Amino acid sequence: MSGLAFVSSLIDRDANNRGKLDYVTALRRDSTTCVVQIAGDQVRMEDKALYTANDAPDTEAVYLGLTPDCKAWFARSIAPEIGLTAIRSLMIEGPLPEDQVSLLAQARSVLHWHGSHGFCAKCGQPSQMMDAGYRRHCPTCQTDHFPRTDPVVIMAVRDGQRVLLGRQAAWPQGMFSALAGFMEPGETIEQAVAREVLEEAGIRVGPISYVTSQPWPFPASLMIGMIAEAASTKIVIDPAELETARWFERHDLEQMLKGTHPEGLFASRPQAVAHAVVTAALK
Amino acid sequence: MSGLAFVSSLIDRDANNRGKLDYVTALRRDSTTCVVQIAGDQVRMEDKALYTANDAPDTEAVYLGLTPDCKAWFARSIAPEIGLTAIRSLMIEGPLPEDQVSLLAQARSVLHWHGSHGFCAKCGQPSQMMDAGYRRHCPTCQTDHFPRTDPVVIMAVRDGQRVLLGRQAAWPQGMFSALAGFMEPGETIEQAVAREVLEEAGIRVGPISYVTSQPWPFPASLMIGMIAEAASTKIVIDPAELETARWFERHDLEQMLKGTHPEGLFASRPQAVAHAVVTAALK
Repeated sequence: MSGLAFVSSLIDRDANNRGKLDYVTALRRDSTTCVVQIAGDQVRMEDKALYTANDAPDTEAVYLGLTPDCKAWFARSIAPEIGLTAIRSLMIEGPLPEDQVSLLAQARSVLHWHGSHGFCAKCGQPSQMMDAGYRRHCPTCQTDHFPRTDPVVIMAVRDGQRVLLGRQAAWPQGMFSALAGFMEPGETIEQAVAREVLEEAGIRVGPISYVTSQPWPFPASLMIGMIAEAASTKIVIDPAELETARWFERHDLEQMLKGTHPEGLFASRPQAVAHAVVTAALK
Repeated sequence: MSGLAFVSSLIDRDANNRGKLDYVTALRRDSTTCVVQIAGDQVRMEDKALYTANDAPDTEAVYLGLTPDCKAWFARSIAPEIGLTAIRSLMIEGPLPEDQVSLLAQARSVLHWHGSHGFCAKCGQPSQMMDAGYRRHCPTCQTDHFPRTDPVVIMAVRDGQRVLLGRQAAWPQGMFSALAGFMEPGETIEQAVAREVLEEAGIRVGPISYVTSQPWPFPASLMIGMIAEAASTKIVIDPAELETARWFERHDLEQMLKGTHPEGLFASRPQAVAHAVVTAALK
């Protein structure tokens, strides 16, 4: 896979039919239905393809939708076992077509939500899966809960021909990436960009523009890729967030994006939206 | 207020200090600290200003941050009472400066989350507020929970000089607005736009571009305003979502945005991002 991961799903989510129990039950029982099997952020493979046999129809399996061949897809949680394949590795290299890797983003995010939301956050009693996986209902207090999608801003901060990148201590040696952070309630995308850049690197920003977006299913983020023009240049890092942050010149960035930098520095892989925002900032 | 609501907060969220108990406790006890008092989507006012007296220091009050005069702001939940003011009405008209109305978006979203998330969704036991309101921790299973921000796409679908608007049966007579819907796990912003327009109106779309964003604290949405170019024109509405949808010509839209349409049709108010995306689509 050479481009942005998780953005190529061909699924029709068939949302208007999720709430129809007979319809969904018929799909669950259909032997041509595909059921992907996921444990955490790993998936079961078989001969370099997704294992999709519908051999254990399961009322807790989540309905993903229909692919263009009108095949129904579900996803179910399984216990961890030997031989599963990390979704992250399928994102970077491997035998699956991009649309199937993208389908795994949907599957993993929704299953993670069910696995961590078995109880009603309002009253503490057990909740039940509804709408083929897109709602949980509390029979005790009647509250409905919906899957989370957590927006994250990720931004290339630009000062003329230079771009600000940071690195966290835990990352592989030589790796730098765009700054990023979770959005908070009550702010705009643009305010979140300005806040995160100021918090993490002490830089003030001016005009902000949108580049692209990407679901990031670890566990359920929406990456919102932005460019921000710097209004100051002196870096003051927050050591709780970053090990370091630096302004990189165009010639360094071009080599870091390609992985050919003479000092072994590199930026995020093409599968990550960080790569897309830095590339866009150099245009 | 004449422009987009909730986007003008001047607060420094002071996020790096939220976790410092002594620091936050000192602010809670400071008599100059402002505490806004909220019940649901209503707020306590006093003489055409926010009631902000710090007369009941409360460990469950959420820290909002610092305003440019270095005053600390908190928000606390109160029981409903007579004489409170709807945040929606303050958004449209009223005595408060825009930055204070914007602050209420943050306050209302975070307080609503605490009010509906007193229990751990993973194990069902009571959770505790941490980090001055930006985290809840479960002492039983050690899970951390963070406030929700639910991304919503809202889009002007454009066919040359025409724009597609819809209306829900519950809306005031004559009102039309941009189509909108919650994003789902595992999709891009652009996929969500295409899905919602197809689901609600049967229209396929081509190129999609970003306009602007807005927090919408009823209870905790992030509105992502987009323009989508139509790739088909025949409308087939989903009657569960919409009462009707229509293509409007430029001269109608201009009058609907200004509220001067001869048939009494009108589009969303300037305070809503729907107004901004339709205006942008006419440029």
